[in-house]
Amino acid sequence: MASYLITGCSRGLGLELATQLASSPAVNTVFATARKESPGLKELIQKSNGRVVLVQLEATSQDSIKQAVTSVEKALGGKGLDVLINNAGIMDYTPGGPSSLSGEDMNSVLTTNVTAVHLVISAFLPLLEKGNLKKIVNITSTLGSIAMAEGFLQSPSVAYKVSKAALNMLTVQYAFQLGKQGFTVFCISPGWLKTELGGVDYADLEVGVGATAVLEKVLGAKKEDNGTFMNIKVKGWDNTGTANQYDGVNPPW
Amino acid sequence: MASYLITGCSRGLGLELATQLASSPAVNTVFATARKESPGLKELIQKSNGRVVLVQLEATSQDSIKQAVTSVEKALGGKGLDVLINNAGIMDYTPGGPSSLSGEDMNSVLTTNVTAVHLVISAFLPLLEKGNLKKIVNITSTLGSIAMAEGFLQSPSVAYKVSKAALNMLTVQYAFQLGKQGFTVFCISPGWLKTELGGVDYADLEVGVGATAVLEKVLGAKKEDNGTFMNIKVKGWDNTGTANQYDGVNPPW
Ligand SMILES: NC(=O)c1ccc[n+]([C@@H]2O[C@H](COP(=O)([O-])OP(=O)(O)OC[C@H]3O[C@@H](n4cnc5c(N)ncnc54)[C@H](OP(=O)(O)O)[C@@H]3O)[C@@H](O)[C@H]2O)c1
Ligand SMILES: NC(=O)c1ccc[n+]([C@@H]2O[C@H](COP(=O)([O-])OP(=O)(O)OC[C@H]3O[C@@H](n4cnc5c(N)ncnc54)[C@H](OP(=O)(O)O)[C@@H]3O)[C@@H](O)[C@H]2O)c1
Repeated sequence: MASYLITGCSRGLGLELATQLASSPAVNTVFATARKESPGLKELIQKSNGRVVLVQLEATSQDSIKQAVTSVEKALGGKGLDVLINNAGIMDYTPGGPSSLSGEDMNSVLTTNVTAVHLVISAFLPLLEKGNLKKIVNITSTLGSIAMAEGFLQSPSVAYKVSKAALNMLTVQYAFQLGKQGFTVFCISPGWLKTELGGVDYADLEVGVGATAVLEKVLGAKKEDNGTFMNIKVKGWDNTGTANQYDGVNPPW
Repeated sequence: MASYLITGCSRGLGLELATQLASSPAVNTVFATARKESPGLKELIQKSNGRVVLVQLEATSQDSIKQAVTSVEKALGGKGLDVLINNAGIMDYTPGGPSSLSGEDMNSVLTTNVTAVHLVISAFLPLLEKGNLKKIVNITSTLGSIAMAEGFLQSPSVAYKVSKAALNMLTVQYAFQLGKQGFTVFCISPGWLKTELGGVDYADLEVGVGATAVLEKVLGAKKEDNGTFMNIKVKGWDNTGTANQYDGVNPPW
C-alpha cells in the first residue's frame, strides 16, 4: 500500500492522476496538493473515504512547501512517502517566436517549471528516503526535447520548451545523486492532453487516457529507468510517424 | 570588415576573445561590454587604436541593455552589427549535489545564463538584422549536454548544468526563428579553461587556446551550422577518449 504526493491537483492531469490513483487497490493515500481546492478536487476528496488528502501547496514558495512537508509528515505518522509526482506547470504563449518573449515570462516559466520542482524534491526528500518505492516523477514534455525541436515549431511556447529541457537536466542530476540510495527518478511526457494548458480543441488525447498511460509507466518503473526521459504508450497512437507519437519509446534529449 | 559585440569582457574568455578579435585584420570594431571596466579591459582598449569600444552592460538588466543598444547604434552610424557573442555567465558551487542547491542560486544562474542571453539577443536583433554576417554565438558548455551528464558528475555545478541545457534549447529556438532570415545561430563549448569560473589550477586549457579555438569555429560557421551545438578542436586534446575531448565534433544534446 503506497502513498503518493502530486503537485497541481486543482485540475487537468494532476486532478486526473489523483482520481485514478484514489481508485487503485495498491494505493493507500494520495496527497493531492493544490494552491486552492477547486470544485473538482473537493468532490474527489469527499468521495474518497479519506484516501485523498488535500495539502495546500504553492510550488514556487519555500514557506508553503515547508508547511506542506510538515502536514504530510504528520499525516504519515512516522511512515515515509513512496512516490512524488511533480506535475504543476505553466506554459507561455509566444506565437511571435523567441524574440517576442518577455524576460518576465521567461523567468516565471523557469521558476515554476524548474526551480519549484527542485524545491519540492529537496524539501520532500527526507520523507521519500523513508518510503519504500522511492520514485520521483517529473512531468515533462516532448516539447523539451532539443533533438525533436524542429517537429514542434508550431507550438508557440518558447519559455516552456526551454524550461522542460532544463527540467530534464535537473531530473538527470537528481537521478545520479539519488540512484545509489535506491531511488528511481525520471521524467515523462504525458502526451498532448485536452486540458487548459494543452487546449481542449486541438489536443490529441483525453486527459484520462494520458493519466492512465503515465501511471502505467510510473507503476512499471524499475531501477534501470533511473535518469530516463519516458514517453507514454497509447494504442492507436503508437505508429503515427509524427513527433506526436505515443509509442512508449524514450525520446532523445 | 566586421563588427563584433561580446558580453562579459572584464576578464576570462570574454576579455581574451576581445583581445584576439582586436588584432584580426578582418575585424573593424569590437564592442567589449562589461559591467565595469577592469584593468585588463582598460589596457586592451587603450592599445587598440579605437578598435575596441567599451560598452557598459549588465546583462540581467533590461534598462542597461537598452542603453547599450542605443550607444552601439550610435557608434555604428547607421551600419549593422555583424556578430553577437553571448559570453557572460556564472556558475554555482554545489558539491552536495542537487538537493543542496538553494532556490536563490538556481534562479540567479538561470537568470544570468538563460534569461539575460535571451534579453541581449532580442534587444540587439534589429542591429544584427542590418549586419552582413548575421551570427549569434552563445557560449555554452559540454556540462549542459544531458546525454553526457554522467561524464561530468564530478563537476559540482548543478544549476549551471541545468542552465546550459536550457541555453542550448533557447539557441535552437532562435536558430529556427532567424535561420530563414540568413542568420547562423549556434552554441559552442569553449573547453575547460583556466579562468576564475573554470579554476586556474585544474582546468585543461589556457584561456588563449580556448579563445582561438572558439574564434576558428565562429569565423568558419556557415548557414548549415545554424542550430548546432559545437565543440572546439584543439590539437593534442582531440583524442583523449574522455568527456573533455576537444575534437571539434558536435556534442549530443
Ligand atoms: N496538457 C498537455 O498537453 C501537456 C503536455 C505535456 C506536458 N504537460 C505537463 O503536464 C503538467 C500538467 O499540465 P496540465 O495540462 O494538467 O495543465 P493545467 O490544466 O493548466 O493544470 C496545471 C496545474 O498546475 C498547477 N500550478 C501551476 N502553477 C503552480 C504553482 N506555482 N504552484 C502550485 N500549482 C501550480 C495549476 O494550479 P492552479 O489551478 O492553482 O493554477 C494546475 O493545477 C504540466 O507540467 C505540463 O507541462 C501537459
Ligand atoms: N572557463 C571554463 O572552463 C568554461 C567552460 C565552459 C563554458 N564556459 C563559459 O564561458 C563563458 C565565460 O566564462 P569565463 O570562464 O570567462 O568566466 P569568468 O572568468 O568568471 O568571467 C565571466 C564574465 O562574465 C561576466 N558576467 C557575469 N555575470 C554578468 C552579468 N550579469 N552581466 C554582465 N556580465 C556578467 C563577468 O563580469 P564581472 O567581472 O562583472 O563579474 C565576467 O566578465 C561563460 O558563459 C561560461 O559558462 C567557461
